[in-house]
Amino acid sequence: MHTPSNPTEHEVIQLAQALIARMSVTPEDAGCQQLIGERLAAVGFDLESMVFADTTNLWARRGRQGPVFCFAGHTDVVPAGVEHAWRFPPFEPTIHEGMLYGRGAADMKGSLAAMLVATERFVQRFPNHRGSIAFLITSDEEGPFINGTPKVIETLEARDEKITWCVVGEPSSTNHIGDVVKNGRRGSLSGELRVFGIQGHVAYPHLADNPVHKAAPALAVLAATEWDHGNNFFPPTSFQISNVHAGTGAGNVIPGEFHVSFNFRYSTESTADELKQRVYAILDAHELDYAIDWKLNGEPFLTAEGDLVQATVAAVRHHTGRAPQLSTAGGTSDGRFIAPTGAEVIELGPVNATIHKVDECVSIEDLIKLTDMYEGLLEQLLC
Amino acid sequence: MHTPSNPTEHEVIQLAQALIARMSVTPEDAGCQQLIGERLAAVGFDLESMVFADTTNLWARRGRQGPVFCFAGHTDVVPAGVEHAWRFPPFEPTIHEGMLYGRGAADMKGSLAAMLVATERFVQRFPNHRGSIAFLITSDEEGPFINGTPKVIETLEARDEKITWCVVGEPSSTNHIGDVVKNGRRGSLSGELRVFGIQGHVAYPHLADNPVHKAAPALAVLAATEWDHGNNFFPPTSFQISNVHAGTGAGNVIPGEFHVSFNFRYSTESTADELKQRVYAILDAHELDYAIDWKLNGEPFLTAEGDLVQATVAAVRHHTGRAPQLSTAGGTSDGRFIAPTGAEVIELGPVNATIHKVDECVSIEDLIKLTDMYEGLLEQLLC
Repeated sequence: MHTPSNPTEHEVIQLAQALIARMSVTPEDAGCQQLIGERLAAVGFDLESMVFADTTNLWARRGRQGPVFCFAGHTDVVPAGVEHAWRFPPFEPTIHEGMLYGRGAADMKGSLAAMLVATERFVQRFPNHRGSIAFLITSDEEGPFINGTPKVIETLEARDEKITWCVVGEPSSTNHIGDVVKNGRRGSLSGELRVFGIQGHVAYPHLADNPVHKAAPALAVLAATEWDHGNNFFPPTSFQISNVHAGTGAGNVIPGEFHVSFNFRYSTESTADELKQRVYAILDAHELDYAIDWKLNGEPFLTAEGDLVQATVAAVRHHTGRAPQLSTAGGTSDGRFIAPTGAEVIELGPVNATIHKVDECVSIEDLIKLTDMYEGLLEQLLC
Repeated sequence: MHTPSNPTEHEVIQLAQALIARMSVTPEDAGCQQLIGERLAAVGFDLESMVFADTTNLWARRGRQGPVFCFAGHTDVVPAGVEHAWRFPPFEPTIHEGMLYGRGAADMKGSLAAMLVATERFVQRFPNHRGSIAFLITSDEEGPFINGTPKVIETLEARDEKITWCVVGEPSSTNHIGDVVKNGRRGSLSGELRVFGIQGHVAYPHLADNPVHKAAPALAVLAATEWDHGNNFFPPTSFQISNVHAGTGAGNVIPGEFHVSFNFRYSTESTADELKQRVYAILDAHELDYAIDWKLNGEPFLTAEGDLVQATVAAVRHHTGRAPQLSTAGGTSDGRFIAPTGAEVIELGPVNATIHKVDECVSIEDLIKLTDMYEGLLEQLLC
């Protein structure tokens, strides 16, 4: 293995640049999976392209036995936004003062490059590793998450093909590479509440029925409720109202409907059904006439312990000198679709400070360390 | 006095038609005041045209002594809206099955015609009546009520010219002419409340501060508060939220501000200042960070009893066989600007079922009766 003395010439940096240069805004893949697939095929992977509607997915596997170690990630990126606000053109990867700039540098083309280079190195060193290595790559993570990971998992489940350990390359780190590893995520349940009243003139309130007046005490109870106390792995379930609207705009009209959008981020101490029933009970106790459209964005998942968590902690400690913090905070990831199959799932990736923003960037040193950590995981689990 | 056998040829109907044909959409007068003024001058009135900005007002008076009996009204009308939705063209007065159709027929060109014809008849019968008769006519009642009645009253007050009794021609009746007489109106106080929080991501509620959550218990208290119990003349003060808004539209963002529009219709048991202080106290008790823009649309006023109320009740009873219901319900009127000068004020006019709507109309028989009632008032008070 040749390791260049100049880190900007490191092969993981060159691969990350090649991926960033492909303008793969959701749900476009723009040839990223072809590049990844060719290199995986060259080291003995079988490739399966799974196209669902507008989304291209790659399932690649080396080996036919279990256990199955899977790298999961996405080639799609969010739009660049106002391009002239960027320091460097977002799809022309640029190295400046130790950082690699470009849309997707941190979320998550840097991680994809690290996974691929780590795998190539590992396979070169251990061509007869035990079990299998797999890649689950989608181009729909930033989009509506319909035709990406969920459909791939559905396909694998249908033929009883199981993932034992899954490492998702989402940018989990806060200040330094590996300082935070996600070993689960809260569930996300949204509701669109409509409270019905009777519209009327403010001068004749007895002829109307103000839904804002009727709903206010119920919202106060919802906002004040302790849904659970969380547990060792999850903070308490949190309820937040995101949008409210009522009224015609006129100052003399009592509104006929009151719209309230809300969202639960919930721990494994509650289920979506329990939360729904408790919301219904509170609204019913206030004798509201209402309807709710629910959307379950993701069930909570947790890999509390096991070989994968142990190996990850060890790999991070080895390459950074410090054990990572295990966390379930933050937004959703595709791990929510993989964990329900029984797989152990963790997320380990770069610092997330610049993701979805202008001047997205990743530390070159961090990407090289991340490659080493990924290789260390393969070595601990498949040797 | 010639009274035609065919009521459609009655002079009050002909005058109402002449007024409706003048397209005097707020703040236009379209020659209505000239027509009225010429006829008043012909029976001995002194005329004073008061033009403030875009608004033409007429102050006309017959006699130099007190007491002063004043008819108050407006020549402006609200827009016709979708003209082809009308059964008959809105500015081409049309008689059909006993009703006179046209924009302003009920609000309030019919009343203006009745006032004028009643006055002409009365003056013919009693040329040496005691006191004075006055007309306060504006073309800004339906608009922003800045350059109409308030400025005329300001001018009269500045020269200490007082109105003793004022009859406003607003359409006060509900089902039959004279079934309801307004002897006051509630006050109207509006507030635009902004509650401030800290915007953030729903996944990180500890970094945000949700103003909807903080305000909901305060709104519940505001909605449940008994502001007063009203009195013999006023229903209890009522608080209504007319519009609420918070949120960016995105489901994952905690809003940074919460906007709430509300309105008090208040009795003489409360003052605007008391209501403001009580709102502040409730919001402060909930430790909200907020601001309120207030708008006092009108103080409450009441003519509980007196010569004018007695004469009105007697006139209605004489011409309909039933005493009217005295009421302070409903929206605002220009009476709120006249009453604070110390005048007794009542509102007596046609049935208001069609005002501000397509196919606005007034009963021909009702207009003839209204003319008789107005004449009866003059006779009772100035003979």
